[in-house]
Amino acid sequence: MSFIAVNTPLFEGNEKKYLNQCIDTGWISSEGNFVKKFEEDFSKYCDQKFGIAVCNGSVAIDVAIRAIKETYHWQENDEIIVPTFTIISCAQSIIYNKLKPVFVDCDPLTFNIDVNLIEQAITKKTKAIMVVHIYGLPSDMSKILDIAKKYNLKIIEDSAEAHGQEYQWQENQNSKKQKCGSFGEVSTFSFYANKHITTGEGGMILTSNPEIAKKCQYFRNLCFAENRFVHEDLGWNFRMSNLQGALGVAQFEQIENFINKKKAIGKLYQDLLKNIPAQLPLHSTNYAQNHYWVFSIVLNDEVKFDAKHAMKILHANGIGTRPFFFPLHQQPILKKMGFCDNDNIARNVSERIYQRGFYIPTGLGITQEQQIIVVKKVEELFK
Amino acid sequence: MSFIAVNTPLFEGNEKKYLNQCIDTGWISSEGNFVKKFEEDFSKYCDQKFGIAVCNGSVAIDVAIRAIKETYHWQENDEIIVPTFTIISCAQSIIYNKLKPVFVDCDPLTFNIDVNLIEQAITKKTKAIMVVHIYGLPSDMSKILDIAKKYNLKIIEDSAEAHGQEYQWQENQNSKKQKCGSFGEVSTFSFYANKHITTGEGGMILTSNPEIAKKCQYFRNLCFAENRFVHEDLGWNFRMSNLQGALGVAQFEQIENFINKKKAIGKLYQDLLKNIPAQLPLHSTNYAQNHYWVFSIVLNDEVKFDAKHAMKILHANGIGTRPFFFPLHQQPILKKMGFCDNDNIARNVSERIYQRGFYIPTGLGITQEQQIIVVKKVEELFK
Repeated sequence: MSFIAVNTPLFEGNEKKYLNQCIDTGWISSEGNFVKKFEEDFSKYCDQKFGIAVCNGSVAIDVAIRAIKETYHWQENDEIIVPTFTIISCAQSIIYNKLKPVFVDCDPLTFNIDVNLIEQAITKKTKAIMVVHIYGLPSDMSKILDIAKKYNLKIIEDSAEAHGQEYQWQENQNSKKQKCGSFGEVSTFSFYANKHITTGEGGMILTSNPEIAKKCQYFRNLCFAENRFVHEDLGWNFRMSNLQGALGVAQFEQIENFINKKKAIGKLYQDLLKNIPAQLPLHSTNYAQNHYWVFSIVLNDEVKFDAKHAMKILHANGIGTRPFFFPLHQQPILKKMGFCDNDNIARNVSERIYQRGFYIPTGLGITQEQQIIVVKKVEELFK
Repeated sequence: MSFIAVNTPLFEGNEKKYLNQCIDTGWISSEGNFVKKFEEDFSKYCDQKFGIAVCNGSVAIDVAIRAIKETYHWQENDEIIVPTFTIISCAQSIIYNKLKPVFVDCDPLTFNIDVNLIEQAITKKTKAIMVVHIYGLPSDMSKILDIAKKYNLKIIEDSAEAHGQEYQWQENQNSKKQKCGSFGEVSTFSFYANKHITTGEGGMILTSNPEIAKKCQYFRNLCFAENRFVHEDLGWNFRMSNLQGALGVAQFEQIENFINKKKAIGKLYQDLLKNIPAQLPLHSTNYAQNHYWVFSIVLNDEVKFDAKHAMKILHANGIGTRPFFFPLHQQPILKKMGFCDNDNIARNVSERIYQRGFYIPTGLGITQEQQIIVVKKVEELFK
């Protein structure tokens, strides 16, 4: 039996065709048309006016935060509220931009930022809330937007794990749906190989603010301006190549199929794993259906082993897994840098789920037969 | 007559085959085998032990400088000698790493760093000389290495424009050749679409120092370590994808053909343009044959118009051009940041050639017929 990887992407559309077009036309650099088309297609899909493609999701956050910071003239050490249960990239982009991350614990069921803990983290220096939609369910946007409005804060949205996910507004019977990635004054996406749609490595910034869009375009291309090679500012080379763009366009054509497939993968695991002594992902909340970017398992307290042990056994049995995020407020480097000293905010949930949680293979390429093997091996953990 | 672009790449090898293999196998992220093979092939070719592929040449310098700085414990504001006639990336990588660039003028014939001006730029804080091989001729390495040895300085080598170029040692009749990219304790390459071999966007760091190599691998991948998601340091996502790697491997297979083609393109221009009132590139120096990464034209002083005017006319006549680098010591942003105040060093040459110089189409895809059109249009400038 061959190893079942935690992720296998799926290429059943025009991927090869478009890649070959790049070679045939000679357009492989960032100046090719696929990049532009991907930016247009994806920003429109997410209800934002501008898309700025970059080489990956981490640098998308670097660029996005710099652009919004400069647009609103935030000062050094101004603060950004950020969930503690997310990837290091979120914190480091804040720090690289000379702002201060303030870490807030996550909700025990959705793993998204706990909206009840946000207000106590706000100070006079707070400028924005960074929302990160975790593992397949959107954050509780209605409450977050209320808080942002009350304190005059901007929304920075990281939708790396929430391509095409929608938030369902509750106001009335004909409640409106709103795409993840459309909430942020700047929103960012990753198209890494484990994402719903992938460009291998890749990312995008979305915004409807023309000033922010212009800054993002400027920063990603070394601050080249009309007078080429004369630089009024320093940027980065974070351009997306046309090869990545070609893959992005081909994958985007299949996004609804991919989302449906992800939902089906999640549903099957839900049905088959419901009796194990662990917390499975919520299938839905009152504002969204789970898209199951990944399928998470959090071991119940009475289980005698932890996530690390479970992952080790599963690996030995041919099943790929990934640990949960290690909470940002506990990261050695962030502690060393002095970013973890606001300990008036409890963050027990993220600390607990890191110890107890992991996720199992949910790539788009997984088969039902493979899922059944995964389930069998997971069940054996508890025997 | 269609526009003759300043660069058109050439794909006549296994580019499509290898890209299609990525799709067929599902290996498109940075973990694919083509990245590894490209690193191995290219580092071996350049006589260095380790290759660390990254997403472009600019970030290659960011990573390289951080790695060498931390390896040798350089302090904030320690100085790096850098040619003023190069791309902004060289300076900004130094600055981003909290070191100070000290700009040295270029040689009027090769446009490489003027080796006679290096020593006066050295202070007690100088830690390294950054060598950048410009436009197709290697820097005068023998003299640079002598100075580095005398003052105990490291060599950082940017070979973005010098793939496969060789420096010919003069000691004896059987003089040895040494590859560009093999001189640096860290050396960097770009594989942008206008380079000898291209991955669309792409770059690589070469080193034979295992500690530096390890650091580069760590920094390019967000400082992920064995205990995934627990970070002892902050890095970047600067990974190269397997699609880029696939293109790199395919292009590398053709590198000698590409170099020969570049030489032929340069030779033809030399022959046909020899009578215009301008300085053409040196066809050779006493230590190298020109590889003509680009074919530069520096208008003689008696010509009544400048490079900007020439480029405008050529563009109107269907010929793509690029301006020369704007000297780093004159960059508005670097002046503003206070990096241009060591004005005891004359830098007239770079200032002059920026005003008088530009380069003409030299992409691998150019045909002889196109070259002849370019020549005709260039000659018309002077009528």
